[in-house]
Amino acid sequence: MPCFDILSSQDLARGAVLLGTGGGGDPHVGELFLRRQLQRGLQPRLLPLAELADEAFVVSVAGIGAPTVLVEHLLSETALKHLLRQAEALYGRPIDALVCAEVGGANAMLPLAAAALSGLPLVDADGIGRAFPHIDMTTFGIHGCSASPALFSDDLGNLAHLSAADNPSLERMVRALVGSLGGSLYGVLYPLDGARVKRFAVPGSVTQALRIGRHIREARAGSADPVAELVRFLDGLEPGRRARELFDGKVADVRHETRDGFHWGQVLLEPASGSGEPVAIDIQNEFLRARQGERVLAVVPDLLCLLDSESAEPLTAENLRYGMRVRLLAYAAPPCLLSEAALAVVGPERFGLEAPWRSFLADEQGRAQA
Amino acid sequence: MPCFDILSSQDLARGAVLLGTGGGGDPHVGELFLRRQLQRGLQPRLLPLAELADEAFVVSVAGIGAPTVLVEHLLSETALKHLLRQAEALYGRPIDALVCAEVGGANAMLPLAAAALSGLPLVDADGIGRAFPHIDMTTFGIHGCSASPALFSDDLGNLAHLSAADNPSLERMVRALVGSLGGSLYGVLYPLDGARVKRFAVPGSVTQALRIGRHIREARAGSADPVAELVRFLDGLEPGRRARELFDGKVADVRHETRDGFHWGQVLLEPASGSGEPVAIDIQNEFLRARQGERVLAVVPDLLCLLDSESAEPLTAENLRYGMRVRLLAYAAPPCLLSEAALAVVGPERFGLEAPWRSFLADEQGRAQA
Repeated sequence: MPCFDILSSQDLARGAVLLGTGGGGDPHVGELFLRRQLQRGLQPRLLPLAELADEAFVVSVAGIGAPTVLVEHLLSETALKHLLRQAEALYGRPIDALVCAEVGGANAMLPLAAAALSGLPLVDADGIGRAFPHIDMTTFGIHGCSASPALFSDDLGNLAHLSAADNPSLERMVRALVGSLGGSLYGVLYPLDGARVKRFAVPGSVTQALRIGRHIREARAGSADPVAELVRFLDGLEPGRRARELFDGKVADVRHETRDGFHWGQVLLEPASGSGEPVAIDIQNEFLRARQGERVLAVVPDLLCLLDSESAEPLTAENLRYGMRVRLLAYAAPPCLLSEAALAVVGPERFGLEAPWRSFLADEQGRAQA
Repeated sequence: MPCFDILSSQDLARGAVLLGTGGGGDPHVGELFLRRQLQRGLQPRLLPLAELADEAFVVSVAGIGAPTVLVEHLLSETALKHLLRQAEALYGRPIDALVCAEVGGANAMLPLAAAALSGLPLVDADGIGRAFPHIDMTTFGIHGCSASPALFSDDLGNLAHLSAADNPSLERMVRALVGSLGGSLYGVLYPLDGARVKRFAVPGSVTQALRIGRHIREARAGSADPVAELVRFLDGLEPGRRARELFDGKVADVRHETRDGFHWGQVLLEPASGSGEPVAIDIQNEFLRARQGERVLAVVPDLLCLLDSESAEPLTAENLRYGMRVRLLAYAAPPCLLSEAALAVVGPERFGLEAPWRSFLADEQGRAQA
């Protein structure tokens, strides 16, 4: 397991933005939080998923709300410690390990900072292999694990223990509370035993984010085209998961709105070459779908990432600005997100997108077979 | 203390609608609930406020949400028992007695039914002497008692334990949850010791509702004008609290909207005589203010009640319909609601009404002094 330093903390944050596909919150504040722990000599301990005991009691720690607001409401160390103590009181047992609900953005950094602060190990895995806007959208949820009972706090003395009839109800309740309490909350949820975490979590996510971030840093120093180099790297990183560059463009229009506890928007990219059809990307916290005219280039649960054209820096949705030069990358979802049961929870229809999921490789594979 | 039968149960419901000033929920369903307990031989036990032990542990039970929705979501007996058990687990001690948060409408009947069902005594008092739309609007809240920790449930398996930084924050959290969970919730809140309940509650409210309801029933049988008879009765019922009939009219227009967990509206009354200026009544669950042109006839916290012109049946806001013949009655608020501290919580400004509170007797007293 890696020993974290400032450099690896930055690498992890960078990789987490890529896996966050525009959402999950800007990890910068989370990274500063982690960095402060490292400077105090507190190391987060990463636990390989395989080493997790079946009977261990594992919970997720996450920020909930529009990423635009989450970055402005950083939980204090005191509040984070208090939240974990309250969670132990709620569950009536000590927490043995933490796991990221999602490895995207700030929600990758926060559990790492919590691990450093509390001394609890962080399982090297997560509940989705990317970021998603709803708390029911996890592999744990897909496999019928309840996110309840869960605990949410806003660092101003407001605390909610919620037990919902099902995960979508919990999502509705939390989202309503988020709206009533300033736009963001921090929570402890998905109380699970180690056996179920081992069975359902996406393994190695934290390490993967770290490797992706490090690779971008190294490609920047050693390659003329870090984006192309990154696509090659991702394309061979895990069996069955391909990566492609889909578009080279420029931000021509960007609409943002923070509403109902989410960040909504659409980004329009014009071709960098100056001619050709533009690409529109729909946002609900995360990049959900990229279209060129009527043609869907890529859609959830596949990962859509926007990178700075030159530096390959992954970009969060809320930081996109007019005129930015960006390249659009698609990275295949972890295979476990593509089953029928999984697509019912995290497929395009759950986001109100009409068409069913279709791989961004479908055309390419069609041509190869023809 | 009275032994409850079907008749007294109906009397109480009728009196609770009057004290509910249009809100608090139609007590009919709550009355049916209580009636079922009576038919099973379960009597609610009323405990005079003075007999409450200082160290008794007392909680309020209430339905929260737009009255329009509350009447359609009656809590089951099983769910009500479960809610009380969950509350005892949350507070870590057995509940010794129940008290009405508000004596208005369904929120007078529900605690009585809960008392019959659980065997717990119901203190003959309430937290406001009327009904109000916000859960922070109680004499307990006015005197700095926290409504937290509180427990809310929707009878579908969704449960929220909330601890808020202050009562207005709790109100915001609960109202948001109400909106996310179908428009109504049932809750246990204001965990208090007997000493504070004795000090801050409005005494005798349940008995008062019962007496008012009985008086209306008897006046109907024995008086040519039950409304005038009721006004006389109320005017002498408690020292310092006067009652007046303000207007005799006909519902000319009624606008209703259920939004943000409340029932909003305005009712326009034309004079029954056919000539004269109409009266407009503003509604947020309860009747807040009656105006004739620019002149305010009566405003919260004084009680505004609409009665059927002939039968003196008190009417809930959501049941008003075009063409109904009604008489508008004002009943002075309990004196404890008129202090500066109380008006800051339940005065007109809290409802976004510009002018400060002014007694509906001010003009009459002015004339008498002139």
